[in-house]
Amino acid sequence: MPDTFVALLSDFGTRDVYAGVMKAVVARIAPAARLIDLTHEIPPGDVRQAAFRLWQVFPHMPPGTIFLAVVDPGVGTVRRPLAIQAKGFSCVGPDNGIFTYLLAGRTDVRSVVISAVSPSSTTFHGRDIFAPAAGMLAAGTPLERIGVEAADLTAIPWPLLSGESASRSVHGEALFADRFGNIVTSIGRLTRLDDAIRFEPWVPGGSAPLVLPLAGLRVLLGRGGEAPVVRTYGEVPVGSSLAYIGSDGLLEIAVNRGSAEGSLGLAAGSHISLSCE
Amino acid sequence: MPDTFVALLSDFGTRDVYAGVMKAVVARIAPAARLIDLTHEIPPGDVRQAAFRLWQVFPHMPPGTIFLAVVDPGVGTVRRPLAIQAKGFSCVGPDNGIFTYLLAGRTDVRSVVISAVSPSSTTFHGRDIFAPAAGMLAAGTPLERIGVEAADLTAIPWPLLSGESASRSVHGEALFADRFGNIVTSIGRLTRLDDAIRFEPWVPGGSAPLVLPLAGLRVLLGRGGEAPVVRTYGEVPVGSSLAYIGSDGLLEIAVNRGSAEGSLGLAAGSHISLSCE
Amino acid sequence: MPDTFVALLSDFGTRDVYAGVMKAVVARIAPAARLIDLTHEIPPGDVRQAAFRLWQVFPHMPPGTIFLAVVDPGVGTVRRPLAIQAKGFSCVGPDNGIFTYLLAGRTDVRSVVISAVSPSSTTFHGRDIFAPAAGMLAAGTPLERIGVEAADLTAIPWPLLSGESASRSVHGEALFADRFGNIVTSIGRLTRLDDAIRFEPWVPGGSAPLVLPLAGLRVLLGRGGEAPVVRTYGEVPVGSSLAYIGSDGLLEIAVNRGSAEGSLGLAAGSHISLSCE
Repeated sequence: MPDTFVALLSDFGTRDVYAGVMKAVVARIAPAARLIDLTHEIPPGDVRQAAFRLWQVFPHMPPGTIFLAVVDPGVGTVRRPLAIQAKGFSCVGPDNGIFTYLLAGRTDVRSVVISAVSPSSTTFHGRDIFAPAAGMLAAGTPLERIGVEAADLTAIPWPLLSGESASRSVHGEALFADRFGNIVTSIGRLTRLDDAIRFEPWVPGGSAPLVLPLAGLRVLLGRGGEAPVVRTYGEVPVGSSLAYIGSDGLLEIAVNRGSAEGSLGLAAGSHISLSCE
Repeated sequence: MPDTFVALLSDFGTRDVYAGVMKAVVARIAPAARLIDLTHEIPPGDVRQAAFRLWQVFPHMPPGTIFLAVVDPGVGTVRRPLAIQAKGFSCVGPDNGIFTYLLAGRTDVRSVVISAVSPSSTTFHGRDIFAPAAGMLAAGTPLERIGVEAADLTAIPWPLLSGESASRSVHGEALFADRFGNIVTSIGRLTRLDDAIRFEPWVPGGSAPLVLPLAGLRVLLGRGGEAPVVRTYGEVPVGSSLAYIGSDGLLEIAVNRGSAEGSLGLAAGSHISLSCE
Repeated sequence: MPDTFVALLSDFGTRDVYAGVMKAVVARIAPAARLIDLTHEIPPGDVRQAAFRLWQVFPHMPPGTIFLAVVDPGVGTVRRPLAIQAKGFSCVGPDNGIFTYLLAGRTDVRSVVISAVSPSSTTFHGRDIFAPAAGMLAAGTPLERIGVEAADLTAIPWPLLSGESASRSVHGEALFADRFGNIVTSIGRLTRLDDAIRFEPWVPGGSAPLVLPLAGLRVLLGRGGEAPVVRTYGEVPVGSSLAYIGSDGLLEIAVNRGSAEGSLGLAAGSHISLSCE
């Protein structure tokens, strides 16, 4: 039997033992499962960032990966606990939209409301429900033995993203800053061509693909400011802002040797646009 | 042979490579051992919090887990290095009371002072003594080959916890705050009944079990302030304090959409009581 | 086949999923490889600290370890991506000197510029080049199938370290502070003898070995201040500075119950010397 990987993502942080307990519970049920910590530092309760992170890591995971994702501000309320299977991967987590971006457009998704385990607490379903269900999946338990079919999964909104062919511009928003202070935006996916950038939206309904000539292409930041689209930091002076195509094909904003997060006055949701002058 | 899990807990943090080196040393000696990081962010030298964390994770670990716990402010002094076996688990760490809560009430405990390895440093016995001993246990070395029998293990005090049946109240203390700013207290274990809460002390000598009616039940916080005992955050207004039964059966104090740690003036050791008016 | 360990070190932090993605990519290519996180909290772009950390962990790793080290401020420029094999270990990372200290003095080193994988981004070669190459090595791909031979690897300078037999002193520098605020210096390796300390330089060209009598031995700190060389913290009053031989044989500076980093005015590169009065 091939190795089964369980990839963990949560907002539990690492100073407490919550993440460690989840790993222990999976290991207890499925000793052969291989555990990969994606991150436990999602901002508390930020379901949307969690959903984005899962989308970001998905293409790189081993086949058969079980995503155990617990960002669960509704723990203890009536929100449903879900186990989900699709071709090549599984998901376990709360029904709050955390898997929205991962599951978009798939037609092969089967979902159940977890009923094979019952919680002993109202505050730590990561330990009581989600880790056991992930362990059961990793140990080979069929989905239908874990719960009863679930319909109408909760979805969260997609980030703002619209391409306008008339004005040859793309409008999006700032998503979050990474450790280096670079701001990841919703504008993508972008591919660099010889003298242009091709835009093909990753968000459903994000309009048709566009080709934007590099000449005169600028990024407009929030309520003022702008940045050139460059290949490398060195193309702008130290302290100046710049934009580039990040590793997921999304537009990112940075400051050469500085922090875009700290200095550009941008927050999650700030309007960003890419347009030809 | 079943998988053997080594669960690591320390105050080494993650910005240095101390925790990584301990894992490498275990892997070098016992390549097949499976490693689970519980946390490396115990506050430096806080043996009591480490002891509590081990108690907290214990029920959820795979059978046979070896706990490699290094919070060791006495490193380099005469405190003894211990390897311990009990039914279903092992422990390796300094003789400073770190395993007090884990071993309480057990009659099947065998302990040795580690002598099979000798340290090359006076400051990093996690690398020089404890990780090698954990690796040896994981590789199947019998306890008696790792050291010579140890008696009179060092113990640390238990948290304050006393139930008073006459006044129908329980007195305890604040233990620490978690990542979310919620304060975990010593008051437990609590179980919710239909119209009452049952108290059965987890601390030896913490008095007899009590049943406290929910009507009029309040939590008194330190030198003033109080909080209702609720099931969910939503039962109090935003910004108000509340108390609930946490995932380990202990009373926890929180502020709805806020941080109890920051706003209630409570520190580790603050007096907390649960009582009927 | 014995277990193959891949040890990861980066400046990616843990709040993003960059480190998780690297682990996923290795696992996808080499499912049986065992992953050990050394640290992902190298200060951004600090190649020298990364090089030191690799030197620090090296003696403790399982045989055959593949070091996947990505501190890569030159990502996207022409710096070469390297895969390296030497007797008993392999390295994958950028050609920026990160492996300088690990490879010093070895005559058995074979290096290639990675060409078997091509990047899909200009900013995340950890994911696109280095993790795939580490996965290929872990899966048994021969080095010569991963790239073409590389010569003249980039090297970084060694820390300041010179022993002066005439004045019976050793001059070095502060390297960095650890989590506890203790400052690791370049002065070593030191071994304590009965009434003296033996110095044998770990840095090439760091002069001949010296024996320094303990009587009158002092550490001079930066532009003023000094500290005694002790065995344990308790030998100086609370709040006083002290020096001791750290777990890697290097001189470390601390403050009893305090932080040397915060209180002694030392930074990376501050001059430190060990001398007899």
